[in-house]
Amino acid sequence: MNLASAVSAVTEYRIIAGDQSLDTPLIAVDLDVLQRNIAEMAALAASCGVALRPHAKTHKSPHIARMQLEAGAVGLTCAKLGEAEVLVDQGGVSDILIAYPIVGDLKIKRLLDLLDRARVVVAIDTHQAAAALSQGVSTGDRALDIYLEVNTGQDRAGARAGQEAVDLAVAISSLPGLRLAGVMTHEGHAGFSAPDEIATIAENAGQALVDTAERIRNQGIAVTHVSVGSTPASWFTPRVAGVTEMRPGTYVFNDNNAFHHGRIGPDRCAARVISTVVSRPAPDRAIVDAGSKALALDPSPSHPGHGYIVGHPGATIARLSEEHGVVTLAPNETGFDVGDRVEIIPNHICPAVNLTDELVMLRDGHVVDRWPVAARGKVR
Amino acid sequence: MNLASAVSAVTEYRIIAGDQSLDTPLIAVDLDVLQRNIAEMAALAASCGVALRPHAKTHKSPHIARMQLEAGAVGLTCAKLGEAEVLVDQGGVSDILIAYPIVGDLKIKRLLDLLDRARVVVAIDTHQAAAALSQGVSTGDRALDIYLEVNTGQDRAGARAGQEAVDLAVAISSLPGLRLAGVMTHEGHAGFSAPDEIATIAENAGQALVDTAERIRNQGIAVTHVSVGSTPASWFTPRVAGVTEMRPGTYVFNDNNAFHHGRIGPDRCAARVISTVVSRPAPDRAIVDAGSKALALDPSPSHPGHGYIVGHPGATIARLSEEHGVVTLAPNETGFDVGDRVEIIPNHICPAVNLTDELVMLRDGHVVDRWPVAARGKVR
Repeated sequence: MNLASAVSAVTEYRIIAGDQSLDTPLIAVDLDVLQRNIAEMAALAASCGVALRPHAKTHKSPHIARMQLEAGAVGLTCAKLGEAEVLVDQGGVSDILIAYPIVGDLKIKRLLDLLDRARVVVAIDTHQAAAALSQGVSTGDRALDIYLEVNTGQDRAGARAGQEAVDLAVAISSLPGLRLAGVMTHEGHAGFSAPDEIATIAENAGQALVDTAERIRNQGIAVTHVSVGSTPASWFTPRVAGVTEMRPGTYVFNDNNAFHHGRIGPDRCAARVISTVVSRPAPDRAIVDAGSKALALDPSPSHPGHGYIVGHPGATIARLSEEHGVVTLAPNETGFDVGDRVEIIPNHICPAVNLTDELVMLRDGHVVDRWPVAARGKVR
Repeated sequence: MNLASAVSAVTEYRIIAGDQSLDTPLIAVDLDVLQRNIAEMAALAASCGVALRPHAKTHKSPHIARMQLEAGAVGLTCAKLGEAEVLVDQGGVSDILIAYPIVGDLKIKRLLDLLDRARVVVAIDTHQAAAALSQGVSTGDRALDIYLEVNTGQDRAGARAGQEAVDLAVAISSLPGLRLAGVMTHEGHAGFSAPDEIATIAENAGQALVDTAERIRNQGIAVTHVSVGSTPASWFTPRVAGVTEMRPGTYVFNDNNAFHHGRIGPDRCAARVISTVVSRPAPDRAIVDAGSKALALDPSPSHPGHGYIVGHPGATIARLSEEHGVVTLAPNETGFDVGDRVEIIPNHICPAVNLTDELVMLRDGHVVDRWPVAARGKVR
């Protein structure tokens, strides 16, 4: 689906009229859209018969983590230990997966501390990291559930699906203090494929993970959880028989990448960067006050430029420097005079949220609250 | 100059050995290199006979702003009002240029407040923004110095050099409360040119600005300051006769972009992202814990990948996701076992600094202080 047809298929819904009491740039979130997105993903998980363990990297917000738990999530996922600490200590999250290897004595010490306050599962994909974790938890007289991360085609981290993963599972399962509770994959590569290929890529990834889990079980290891991730693939991978858990993240807000896959429209993009036109140096060029420090530089697999300006399919955010969004305009495009405001759906909402300290929460176009991005910048 | 020759020309200087009391990823800064960079740019400005007004966007640190002032800078530059407020209130900066249009009543109100605490100059490039500022400062019974931003080839913001800029200068100069104190340009496009073109592009930009200033003076307007910016162009533009001020930013730390222009080497890159290898999923692939949330996604004009790993010209940071740096390795590359640490010079240090809350300050490889990135995230 190309941009024009995607746009024509939905209402060009702006979540806030130019409320001049808000200074820009900022990220505003429509609470009704957020709640709808949370409820519908919970329903999708239920319809697939899998547990929902959303990835918190998108919102980094204890408030939104609680909304997800109240909607039925079994726990949360995060990338880094620092995010887990925030979610446990400020969000009351009691069951959390750190979908990232814990490497180094300082982090192992913090992990042991966190185990006093919550159930924590850690992803592992090397024997070295597993051995160090084993030593740490054993010395602390503790036990830790781990997920083996499996590479099903993304070629980022993870042991390769099949024999390599089985061999690593066997080696790890003999280490004291560790329990191989599950296997996981992140089929993020599906989201960057063409819309007509995403289903096949996602299903192949899910099947490779299920097959690997079964081969590990054949070695006498009780692999309980088979966990997949990624919002764009969420309509496909969790339906693969044998998958038990899904970990989508972006769905709470959605973004330009999501809506360009054609499944959702801008009306389901709950989070917008609200920005002001600060210069109009040429008829075909406007400058908005959202640059890479507000939108982040992530590309879109299907859309030119650095985000979608709601209601302006003829405008392209052609370049970003840190504080400047350089917008190229179709002839006679209106709405880009100095002082005008625009709503931008970022290509990738997760890094955009990581650039701001708070989310301005709206209902019916009015500010009802401000929520801190409490786990912003928690890269350690 | 290609990568191999740049590397061979300098010492592959690591600023810190694997200090395991520091958790990663983090940004470490070598104080000696920082001080040398600050002193040498001050000497360059003096040798050109121009004032130095460094751009604080690189460090966002009141500490480093003070170091620059102590080395002879006449004041600081920043992009956003929020950065100016931090530098004035926490750094004791008394003279500051906001090199960005101030648009909107909320910002004009804050600007008027800031004028009580410091001399502030504001860049303007449209009549609309100037008229609103004029009304604001006149109502507040104040006066404001402005710089007219001139586009000398970057094609971002700014009135075009020549007649367009002259016309705007004349129109603005009649507005009450504003005084056209100078003209400015950001010749940032020079830094993205080929190394053998940078001098010509920078000098042409400087000359266009000088010529425009002279034409404005011919209209009876006393343009005192002729201000240029950009670290890569700093060896060229300030030498153009008639330029009175330079505003480099990146030079305090330098980065992969700077060193790939061949003027400096990694030994002059004061700030490094210290990162740990967290996975080694294949012989030719390692995962480090610095992703786009630590390095930022800015491309380099001359180097493949997302930064330079000091001492490892055969390693390429091929892909970044938020928490993963995917490093492709030459055959038999050592130093990338799980738990090993690397020092990464980001392509662009400014957005990397904006992602962290503090800088770990080193001398002779030992931590001597931690400085807050106090103006981090001040996009408003």
